[in-house]
Amino acid sequence: MNTFGQLFRVTTFGESHSGAVGCVIDGCPPRIAIDSKEIETELARRATGQSHITSGRREAEQVEILSGLTDGKTLGTPICILVKNSDARPQDYANLKDVYRPSHADFTYDQKYGIRAASGGGRASARETTARVMAGVIARKILHEWYGTEILAYVSRVKDIAAQIDLKNITLKKIEANIMRCPDEKVAKQMIALVEQMKAAGNSVGGVVSCIARNVPVGLGDPVFDKLEATLARALMSLPATKGFEIGSGFGGTYLTGREHNDPFYQKADGTIGTTTNNSGGIQGGISNGEDITMNIAFKPTSTITESQETVNTKGNKVTLDNLSGRHDPCVLPRAVPIVEAMVALTLVDHALRQRVIK
Amino acid sequence: MNTFGQLFRVTTFGESHSGAVGCVIDGCPPRIAIDSKEIETELARRATGQSHITSGRREAEQVEILSGLTDGKTLGTPICILVKNSDARPQDYANLKDVYRPSHADFTYDQKYGIRAASGGGRASARETTARVMAGVIARKILHEWYGTEILAYVSRVKDIAAQIDLKNITLKKIEANIMRCPDEKVAKQMIALVEQMKAAGNSVGGVVSCIARNVPVGLGDPVFDKLEATLARALMSLPATKGFEIGSGFGGTYLTGREHNDPFYQKADGTIGTTTNNSGGIQGGISNGEDITMNIAFKPTSTITESQETVNTKGNKVTLDNLSGRHDPCVLPRAVPIVEAMVALTLVDHALRQRVIK
Amino acid sequence: MNTFGQLFRVTTFGESHSGAVGCVIDGCPPRIAIDSKEIETELARRATGQSHITSGRREAEQVEILSGLTDGKTLGTPICILVKNSDARPQDYANLKDVYRPSHADFTYDQKYGIRAASGGGRASARETTARVMAGVIARKILHEWYGTEILAYVSRVKDIAAQIDLKNITLKKIEANIMRCPDEKVAKQMIALVEQMKAAGNSVGGVVSCIARNVPVGLGDPVFDKLEATLARALMSLPATKGFEIGSGFGGTYLTGREHNDPFYQKADGTIGTTTNNSGGIQGGISNGEDITMNIAFKPTSTITESQETVNTKGNKVTLDNLSGRHDPCVLPRAVPIVEAMVALTLVDHALRQRVIK
Amino acid sequence: MNTFGQLFRVTTFGESHSGAVGCVIDGCPPRIAIDSKEIETELARRATGQSHITSGRREAEQVEILSGLTDGKTLGTPICILVKNSDARPQDYANLKDVYRPSHADFTYDQKYGIRAASGGGRASARETTARVMAGVIARKILHEWYGTEILAYVSRVKDIAAQIDLKNITLKKIEANIMRCPDEKVAKQMIALVEQMKAAGNSVGGVVSCIARNVPVGLGDPVFDKLEATLARALMSLPATKGFEIGSGFGGTYLTGREHNDPFYQKADGTIGTTTNNSGGIQGGISNGEDITMNIAFKPTSTITESQETVNTKGNKVTLDNLSGRHDPCVLPRAVPIVEAMVALTLVDHALRQRVIK
Repeated sequence: MNTFGQLFRVTTFGESHSGAVGCVIDGCPPRIAIDSKEIETELARRATGQSHITSGRREAEQVEILSGLTDGKTLGTPICILVKNSDARPQDYANLKDVYRPSHADFTYDQKYGIRAASGGGRASARETTARVMAGVIARKILHEWYGTEILAYVSRVKDIAAQIDLKNITLKKIEANIMRCPDEKVAKQMIALVEQMKAAGNSVGGVVSCIARNVPVGLGDPVFDKLEATLARALMSLPATKGFEIGSGFGGTYLTGREHNDPFYQKADGTIGTTTNNSGGIQGGISNGEDITMNIAFKPTSTITESQETVNTKGNKVTLDNLSGRHDPCVLPRAVPIVEAMVALTLVDHALRQRVIK
Repeated sequence: MNTFGQLFRVTTFGESHSGAVGCVIDGCPPRIAIDSKEIETELARRATGQSHITSGRREAEQVEILSGLTDGKTLGTPICILVKNSDARPQDYANLKDVYRPSHADFTYDQKYGIRAASGGGRASARETTARVMAGVIARKILHEWYGTEILAYVSRVKDIAAQIDLKNITLKKIEANIMRCPDEKVAKQMIALVEQMKAAGNSVGGVVSCIARNVPVGLGDPVFDKLEATLARALMSLPATKGFEIGSGFGGTYLTGREHNDPFYQKADGTIGTTTNNSGGIQGGISNGEDITMNIAFKPTSTITESQETVNTKGNKVTLDNLSGRHDPCVLPRAVPIVEAMVALTLVDHALRQRVIK
Repeated sequence: MNTFGQLFRVTTFGESHSGAVGCVIDGCPPRIAIDSKEIETELARRATGQSHITSGRREAEQVEILSGLTDGKTLGTPICILVKNSDARPQDYANLKDVYRPSHADFTYDQKYGIRAASGGGRASARETTARVMAGVIARKILHEWYGTEILAYVSRVKDIAAQIDLKNITLKKIEANIMRCPDEKVAKQMIALVEQMKAAGNSVGGVVSCIARNVPVGLGDPVFDKLEATLARALMSLPATKGFEIGSGFGGTYLTGREHNDPFYQKADGTIGTTTNNSGGIQGGISNGEDITMNIAFKPTSTITESQETVNTKGNKVTLDNLSGRHDPCVLPRAVPIVEAMVALTLVDHALRQRVIK
Repeated sequence: MNTFGQLFRVTTFGESHSGAVGCVIDGCPPRIAIDSKEIETELARRATGQSHITSGRREAEQVEILSGLTDGKTLGTPICILVKNSDARPQDYANLKDVYRPSHADFTYDQKYGIRAASGGGRASARETTARVMAGVIARKILHEWYGTEILAYVSRVKDIAAQIDLKNITLKKIEANIMRCPDEKVAKQMIALVEQMKAAGNSVGGVVSCIARNVPVGLGDPVFDKLEATLARALMSLPATKGFEIGSGFGGTYLTGREHNDPFYQKADGTIGTTTNNSGGIQGGISNGEDITMNIAFKPTSTITESQETVNTKGNKVTLDNLSGRHDPCVLPRAVPIVEAMVALTLVDHALRQRVIK
């Protein structure tokens, strides 16, 4: 299932080494201005080779919009957007085609489909998320135009190095101020040092990306199976390397009593109703309540490590893996930030369209 | 959106105080034996009034199967199953119809739909999950018949009281051995004592339900948006009161390095391939690898507390809530156990059917 | 697939002899007044036993609305509506359980599912359409309230007896003026005489039901695969016994040249744009243009005839069928009229909701 | 809605003058050999400029397969296939951008979306069907490999010139033997003469394309809303210019009595069960019965004519249309043939995959 969304339907395509990766967006509202440049700008945040702590594969991200626009505006028809895969190096993978790399998808793809991409990670590669980011740019734009919605993700923890974040003060500028995309400048430096150390050792680390969505209108979410947190969870857990999802107080909230956890309602100065605390993370009964939506997503340490590892090949024979391609990320978190934002945007815009039906 | 599943499609209906709650299952394979008694047996695990630490509302769970069977076997046509709502007490809620209870869905339903159920929690009530459990019985049966799949959920933590669990030794019998549904008998007693204390204080607690699925065939999961962990996350985060989801190593896994976290492959005695560790939680690249699938789900402390609370009414005026109906659970966890199992079963059976298409 | 509609989703359930037939409507807008009485009134138009030219099976149509309403208004949550099956006579079918009746679904259901309903036609029975009519009442009501839409079906031909109809003058009253539901009173009498003659001979006839939808707003239809005529065609061809569908000029239009067939645009007195002719049948490019939508649906002669017929049993042995249950319709057309209207209403309301997303 | 199919999901994109037209196929089974050459060969049957009786626009059909394959075999991942639009001549349409051409989609697209493609017919152009033909090649290949299914469409009537066809004897070779794609060679010549005459007069004609599908396995179709004839009807009525659909006996069958129309079952020499006649058109109860599936589709006379016509512009003012672009088809039927086949193949392969779930 490579389509996301009920009304803003994004179908992605492309393997790590296929001709292109891209998406078709069906159900995008008409008369939205879209520019390939703004998509390229966002892709640069996701691109490899952006800093010394990310993968070295250089991705040529020239965006082609092949349909769905007239004079730079959406027609309400399907929008096909793609980027060509220009730096594929299949030969790097030749010696891996019969090997099941630990904690990769080689084995499971083989078992499920009876075939797998001859090189690269195929659809399991993070390369696939390029398409999500492209679609996310449009989703975000719509949300921003309609509601002033702002979606900000950032690295909040790398292994055991956690940032101290004041949610009120986070800005895109602070997030982009360092290559870790952690708005706590001091902690970011420690995180970077850890990643450098891991890279040198041929090892890898994971951590947590957090996300806040501000100015989300009240009423988004579609109980019972498409409660807002349920669709956000699916969206984010569909990203490679994710192991956990939290909304609002998350697992930490389970250490509180009901009295401590409940968010009392009050009337705001403008007459609308809000809550004095936000353990709910902006969602109650599966529907947004107008407060900030807050989430955490756990990303495991990258599976690709260059240190020697034992595993088996497709015949079940033992194999030792050495010197796996150096073109990998010792820590996926900085590049995961724009991808998380994209998935949140895609989820929210789909719910925004669904809510139009009811109003 | 009240339908779950692409091929095994369960549509649930019913409010807490409507005539009935139930479901229609469309896409159930033909020739499966179904008995209303086995559904009633499972419903009893979810029912209120089952112990002194759960809600006192007595639910009459007489199951009616209205379609889809001939001589006790499924026809491959839609199966409608329902239970009547016989113990609704709308008058208990008369004084609440203009009040927004903290951390309930009253406010958001009102805002989204412009109307809400005059009494009870409507669709936001846990009553709705009855329908999921009914459908889950059939899903489980199919999985068990086809693959010997076993799905076991249990309470692993209540507030800060955590059980010590050896995954290998968990059995249904051990889980059902105490009213907390925690297979660590000693810790279960402490948990129960805590809940009794909370109940007496008019307060509530939350915690974690864990789940293990054994004998899941290799190959389930539908990348990229319906990766197995993504659909499980959606399934479980669609349950009332959930705040977080973990697969395999979860958030804890982010404290490891790649070397520590990777699960090496090896050849088992029977010639098949497995992994020596299971940080992946039985899923790699969004597809089951044949190892046990392990999950944790965070449930917040119950929103309904009887202690006095401040909030506002529909006009935004301050209101003090006292003595909310005593028919609530001071801790939802024991009753959440069968519901978690049901959602896992519904997710797995849907993927099992999808996988038939490929084979 | 027993669900119809993308946003106004109707899932039907029930076999001819199961406990009940009904539907769950998910996605119905909130705050619509619904009354079980109005549904029962419409069901009476579809009911058997309504005249001497329809099937004698008496259907007790007491409507139960089990969910989705509060104080008689929709909540925006799933609405379950059903009627019990009270007059099932399984014994009438005992001798047919191993026989493949000609042009019935006995053989194909057996082949597809490996099982079939022990009595009656199961899901292939026209009994299933009861659920569609119930859902259709709500769809029609919404369309009428929002746009003043009026949907009228009628019998336009029985075998070779064709009515002369002036589309401008058709009213519900004229249609209901005779038991044939043909607004051409004189021709209706001939049709009735033919059906009586067929019934006496143990034979059956088919014909054409036509339908006109007035005051359909401009803009309904969802190219390219859900063009309005495509979804109408699917809706109507999903009815039992249908063999053909026409929109606007239909097959007859293929005898014209482009010059003759094109519908010129003009400006109406109120400033809006219309067409001077309506060969398009109210749809252009798959989207409604504001003119009347006109359709014809071919219904084959009823498969159940009481005259002796040759066929085979499940083992492939020759069997002679005599005296099939007398409770069948020698001509389904009069009872098909409300069913056709229901399917048109369900199609239009779904498109109306989809169009809200774009506006 | 630009996606077709539940399991073999084809999403098409592209306007008549956009950068490309193409499709993404999600759900294609793995390990199917695909070659861009075979797709190009089939596209040539649909291409403009193929004979003197079709549109002169020359379409460069160089097929690019951008994803979903490894070593020429499908991976089970999304397949993106496209052709660039190289011969768009937007200037031809400059004078039409404010005009509503009679029986075109200009008016309805403007009304629905509030915007429309600045040139060409946008998504309403037959150019869009290129994508369907590309996907259809793969669908057909699968059906042929699995069941030996053969799908043959042909022109059976142009205006009032009808071919005499013996269904048993139709072959692809006979259909392709003349530029009309009518296997009745003598009548084909008369049809061609009529089209030449219409072209000379600046007028156009329509007619009927018929289709037969042989070796369709028993059991395809998904009652009740996705009965095989219902999905075929939707598939075919989603094509531009269609006005009617018939399955089996169609409207003609309504002139028969039940006794005449019923198809008696018999046991074939090989022990399987068949019917002695085929008024059912290979489908009973919405499910294929193993007999040939037969259909007729009505195509209206082409809306684009070069003769002078009256209409209005976007302001509602009267306009006379003269000398519309000569690059149109005076009769769409010959080029509709491969498109009809493609839609039938896409429908059947989707049902074939669905049936795998049940078996």
